[in-house]
Amino acid sequence: MKDQISAALVLIGNEILSGRTQDANLKYIADSLGKVGIVLLEARVIPDVHDTIISTLRVLKTQFDYVFTTGGIGPTHDDITSECVASAVYQPLELHPVAFKAMDDYYREKGIEFNDARQRMAKTPRGATLIESTASIAPGYVADNIIVMAGVPRIMQRMLSDVIPTLNHGVITTSRQLHTNLPEGVLAQPLTELQSRYPQIDIGSYPQMTNGRGFHVILVYRSTDIEALEALDKDLKNMITSAGGEYDLDAKPAPNA
Amino acid sequence: MKDQISAALVLIGNEILSGRTQDANLKYIADSLGKVGIVLLEARVIPDVHDTIISTLRVLKTQFDYVFTTGGIGPTHDDITSECVASAVYQPLELHPVAFKAMDDYYREKGIEFNDARQRMAKTPRGATLIESTASIAPGYVADNIIVMAGVPRIMQRMLSDVIPTLNHGVITTSRQLHTNLPEGVLAQPLTELQSRYPQIDIGSYPQMTNGRGFHVILVYRSTDIEALEALDKDLKNMITSAGGEYDLDAKPAPNA
Repeated sequence: MKDQISAALVLIGNEILSGRTQDANLKYIADSLGKVGIVLLEARVIPDVHDTIISTLRVLKTQFDYVFTTGGIGPTHDDITSECVASAVYQPLELHPVAFKAMDDYYREKGIEFNDARQRMAKTPRGATLIESTASIAPGYVADNIIVMAGVPRIMQRMLSDVIPTLNHGVITTSRQLHTNLPEGVLAQPLTELQSRYPQIDIGSYPQMTNGRGFHVILVYRSTDIEALEALDKDLKNMITSAGGEYDLDAKPAPNA
Repeated sequence: MKDQISAALVLIGNEILSGRTQDANLKYIADSLGKVGIVLLEARVIPDVHDTIISTLRVLKTQFDYVFTTGGIGPTHDDITSECVASAVYQPLELHPVAFKAMDDYYREKGIEFNDARQRMAKTPRGATLIESTASIAPGYVADNIIVMAGVPRIMQRMLSDVIPTLNHGVITTSRQLHTNLPEGVLAQPLTELQSRYPQIDIGSYPQMTNGRGFHVILVYRSTDIEALEALDKDLKNMITSAGGEYDLDAKPAPNA
């Protein structure tokens, strides 16, 4: 098993960049991937622009083990993800026979016309593997190392849980955290020392506004090495106490801070 | 006045990529910039990694009028934004005399030691312009076309409102929307026709799950040309009615969908 499987996420959608919609997918995908040792190392939000989607996918697919995309796989004119993915992997976009058959059956049974717009949703880059999912009649799929999913959160979430078992998993990163009332200006120097003593741990320091009470700091430390995390945990607590602070305060982090 | 001022946003922070924190800054920044005709065309979330920050900023600063960054300007070891911005603009990182004086006065008055870690926050790339703001004792600043702001939402928001008046503004994009009960598979063909008749308008179609009632579709159309928007508005309503649908339903969009 490779130690770390890396991933990038491309959120395709003008509505996030215009500020109309609050993204709900990034955090969910990051959480879900983290649980199987796939580490999200970059996320990009890009508009529904042909050249931007293709060039972004081409760059990211060589840099990361997996590239996840959300959005743009519906039947309307602004759904251009599949044709862009096809270009990005240098394959023609064509009707996927399995997807076509399933959709044809579905619409026939419902008595709904399987028109050209709906048939577009059965097109994938040649060689793509469908994500077997009941999430939606229009399928998600995997083309090379690009995982193509819907943008609607509930559909994306089901597709993601269906595709994850088919992917390579890595060693899981464990995360711990500690709240303290010490300011970052006091924590900075001992934290730098601890970070250099624990190079295998990623130590982050996040000031949080607490209503009317100024700042608390949340220290977050993440690693695949649980013994080292436990040792750092003790060292951090000692460090905070000797600097005159308290830890594990019942601080309510500010919403979304 | 240039028609469109373009911007990219770089959210610097492991905590968003790990799924620990829900980003709260992208939507706020997109909204605020849109109001003065600065159009956000790309957003990236990247980790606290030196080379990643520098290469991302160097690419984006040539592609967009402005590059906004949030996060990583505190006093701790994981706050590496300023040294990376300095590299990205090929300038040395040095104590900014105005920032240094203000922070020195502040800490002296509070009786708090202005130690090395805190002094780091007074360092900016040579030639940077401080953002005049009461948001924080540690200043945001502008270096070349890169706008460097704090990551804590309330501080970022104040810095943003203080820096926006100093930037170039563009023509404002107006956004309208219409809810309909028609499915995308029916809307697709007439929408494609309308999009080709109104090339100056960006028409988006967003299916929304409504609890237990399947889907509604929200059509969003955005342009700087208000007369065209009004004409499209009429055409969309006629199109929906003639296809047997209803518009402007009191649909509750699913949260975050």
